[in-house]
Formats: sequence, structure tokens, C-alpha cells
Amino acid sequence: MKLLEGKKTADQIKEEIKEQVAQLTSVGKRPPHLAAVLVGTDGASLTYVGSKVKSCDYVGFESTLLHLDENTTEAELLAHIEKLNQDPTLDGYIVQLPLPKHINEEKILLAIDPTKDVDGFHPANFGRMALEMDAFIPATPFGIIELLERYQIETSGKHCVVVGRSHIVGRPISILMSQKGAAGNATVTLAHSRTKDLIALTLQADIIVMALGIPEFLKADMVKQGAVIIDVGITRVAVATHPKGYVIKGDVAFDEVAPKASYITPVPGGVGPMTIAMLLKNTLLGYLRKA
Amino acid sequence: MKLLEGKKTADQIKEEIKEQVAQLTSVGKRPPHLAAVLVGTDGASLTYVGSKVKSCDYVGFESTLLHLDENTTEAELLAHIEKLNQDPTLDGYIVQLPLPKHINEEKILLAIDPTKDVDGFHPANFGRMALEMDAFIPATPFGIIELLERYQIETSGKHCVVVGRSHIVGRPISILMSQKGAAGNATVTLAHSRTKDLIALTLQADIIVMALGIPEFLKADMVKQGAVIIDVGITRVAVATHPKGYVIKGDVAFDEVAPKASYITPVPGGVGPMTIAMLLKNTLLGYLRKA
Repeated sequence: MKLLEGKKTADQIKEEIKEQVAQLTSVGKRPPHLAAVLVGTDGASLTYVGSKVKSCDYVGFESTLLHLDENTTEAELLAHIEKLNQDPTLDGYIVQLPLPKHINEEKILLAIDPTKDVDGFHPANFGRMALEMDAFIPATPFGIIELLERYQIETSGKHCVVVGRSHIVGRPISILMSQKGAAGNATVTLAHSRTKDLIALTLQADIIVMALGIPEFLKADMVKQGAVIIDVGITRVAVATHPKGYVIKGDVAFDEVAPKASYITPVPGGVGPMTIAMLLKNTLLGYLRKA
Repeated sequence: MKLLEGKKTADQIKEEIKEQVAQLTSVGKRPPHLAAVLVGTDGASLTYVGSKVKSCDYVGFESTLLHLDENTTEAELLAHIEKLNQDPTLDGYIVQLPLPKHINEEKILLAIDPTKDVDGFHPANFGRMALEMDAFIPATPFGIIELLERYQIETSGKHCVVVGRSHIVGRPISILMSQKGAAGNATVTLAHSRTKDLIALTLQADIIVMALGIPEFLKADMVKQGAVIIDVGITRVAVATHPKGYVIKGDVAFDEVAPKASYITPVPGGVGPMTIAMLLKNTLLGYLRKA
């Protein structure tokens, strides 16, 4: 069994980006610029946005955090987005989800200029990705593709079972892995809550991508010997005795599944860190496309 | 075994549309208006466009055929498209593919106003469909969904194997059938040219969608007893003794597969006629969205 060390790979990607930024600025060019919009004070969101800003600083990007009050109206937020769309010094931005309930997320999403949509959530980007045109690929599936590629895991002709059909992970990774590109050409089955006899499917899988959000759902008896296991789950499970009051659990019962796997991502330290690295990569791609 | 009679269902849909158009015009409203752009004189394209125009006439739509010379330049075609985009009396239009080699199809496709893109090929529509927003769904997969629905074929929790990953059939039907909507909630496997051991997959399938373009590829020994078989293949196979010089073959060896199937689409008369009906339906939807 080999670990797919997302943390280490993400660090390596950040080093590569940092070097590329240093080269750009050394010849007098401005650095790439990423902005994050955060509305309200949700704890997890603050943490995520904080890490994104910190990563920008690390690689030498300019970053802007637009932290808006919980009571910001939809119209006010749209006005901010319009300004970000117009800003020629900005290469990309994200609007951290979830938004407060009085704001229509779809409306906000559709207002983002697709050429700055480094999260890849806008339908114009999603469609371009699905139709194999240049696009911003959502950071989590992009991170999985990158991880599979850097570890040179063969996907062509392999049977990949993706569990979970979310718009930001399950759906896009199922599309990407069955296309002709990097880490592609797999035969992909997309399973979800309505799937019957999931075990019969996962037992056939050469590669399993778990993106369900149910801690330790995938057990050893659901997995073929030698399978590649990608765990996208990040659930906080309350543990009173833990200093933080919780631990992070993936969708895979790691201790029992790992001995059967050929490759497996740990949680934490697997897919999670890759997500931020790929957001930086998307920002750099946005910058380079404009140049 | 029951036939999924696409021809009959398409005729029924056309009657429904015809009635709705008659109601609209009886209260003084203009009828829906579809335009088709054809460049050059490709035989099959002429036939397809001809049937589309004829179907428009039948249901009471206004139709415009813009038949351009083989030597039309890309710039000239783009100018025509811009006019169609601006025309307030036009609800939708299609650009018949393939285009002559000197014209970049992607560029043309991207120039079509997504709100008039009744073929549903523009990435903005494709992305909206994949993200479960209101969209124009490409006519062939839309027709398959409609056929499954009208025959009340249960798809929820069923294992559907789609063979072929084209942008206009395999990819979109694989997405639609695994979503929550009509004829949805299936566990979908997308197989293609790189798939190994396809038979092992098709033998598990409750529903098989063949969209490969290889005549009579699916044989009886690849199919489970009682499976639902959807055949999207339409290949002209040369037959010297036939008056037309060819016959139309599907991807399914109908004579041997049909006895094992619970439901099966014939070719011709199955998915094909549904495609034109759903193009009309998309045009009507475009008209109603504007109203």
C-alpha cells in the first residue's frame, strides 16, 4: 500500500507556482491576484478563506479578502461582484459558500464573470469542461486528476466507481475521468444515494472515489484487493476528549481499507490540501490566459 | 418484449405541440419560429434539415431555412449568426453540422446566443443542464428521457450502461439519467472505446443506451434477460440491391437482442423521430420562456 500524499504533492505544486511567480515578477510583471468574498462569520468558512489567503501570500500572489457583514443584501453583494468583474488587476475570485439564507446562491454564481471563476462553478465553465474545451476545472476534482497523474496511476480502461453526485466533486470527477485527457479514459460508474447494491459495484472497481460525506462509510469488505482509493470526505466528528472538540474523518474506514489498497489518500492530508493548490493553479492559469 | 415506438410517440408529441400552437395563434399570438442554417450541400444534412422544416410546418411553427453556399466564409457565417441572435421574432435556431472544413465549428457554436440554442450544444446550456438549472437539453438525449418517461420505465436505482461518450448523446444522457429528474436516479456507467470487458458491464445492465455508431454491435449474448434497450445508432450500410443503395442500421443486432429485451427501440422509428420532436419542443420552450 502506498499513500497518495496530497499534502506533499500540494506543497510541491505551491513551490512550482511560487517559482513561476518569482520569474514573472523578476522581469517586472505584476503577480497573479486572487480575491475571496466572504459574507458572515461561519467558522469553517473563515478557516477555509484564511488558508486560501495564506497560500496566496506564500506563493507570492496578491490577495484581497472582501469580508462582508452577515446582513449584506443580495443587491449589495451583486454590486461588489460587478466591481470584481470589472477590475483589470484581478485574475480570479471566489465567493465562499454557503452564503446567508437571504441571498440566492445561484444568482450570485451566475453573476461571476466566467473568465474569473477560478472555482469553476459557473455553468459556462462547467459546460466547457464537459465539452472538452479550455475551462476552469473545479479545484477538488482538478486536484484528484493532478494527484493521479503525478503518482502515474493508470486510469485508461480501468473501472472507476465514483460515489456521490454533487456538482462540485462527484459529477465533475466522473466526467473528467471518462474523457480523453489526463487521468482519463476510465470506464466510470457514478453511484449515489439511490444506487442499489453499491457493494457489488465497489467490489468491481479498480479505482474508487468517495465523495459522499458519510464518515468511514467505505469498509474493507466493499473493496477489491489492490484498488486505488480516493477519499474526498471531510466531516467533523465530535470527540469530547479531543482538544479541538472534533476530529476530521473521511468517507473511508482508513485503518481497515488501507491494507487492501494499492494506493490510498489519507484524511486529512490527502485530497483537501490539493484543493487549495489547484485554486492557486487556476488563478495562475487565469493570469496567463490574459497575458 | 415491447417496442418503444419512437415514431408513434414523436407523432403524439407533435400533435400536442400543434394543439398548443393553435391555441396561441387563436388568441392572436405569433407562432414559435425556428430557423435552420445549412452551409453547403451534404446529402444527409439536406435530408435532416428538410425534415426539420417540414415538421415545423406541420405543427404550425414559422420556419426559416438559411441555405448558404459551400464557399461561405467563417466571417460571413458569423455575421448571419449575429443577425439571428438579434432577431426578436426568432425563438431558436440550429446550425446543421458538419460545417465545411474551412469553418471552425467551435467558434460558430460559441457565437450562438445560448437562449436561442435549441440544439443545446453551447457550453452555457450544457453546463446549466449538468448543474440542474433550466436549460435547452440536446434533442437526442432529451428524446430518450421523454420516451422512457412516456413508457413509464422505472429508472430509479437501475443500472444503466451508456456505450459511447459523444458530446451530443453519450455524455449528456449519462448525466441526465443519473440526476434526480425525469427518467433519472439511475446508477450510470459510461463505457467507450477504451473500456475493457464491455460484455461484463452490459450483462449487468438493466438499461443499455447504445450510442457508438457501429452497426449491430450489441449482440444477444451481451444482454441480460429483461433489459431495456435504447438504440441511438443510425448508420447507412451500403446494400447494392436496395432501391436507395443503403439501409439504416442501429447499434443493436435487433433480431437477436429483441427477444431478450423487456423494451427495445427499433431502428428506424425509435430514437430518430424523437430527436426532431424534441427540437420542436425546445423551440416551444424557448418561445414560452420569452413570453
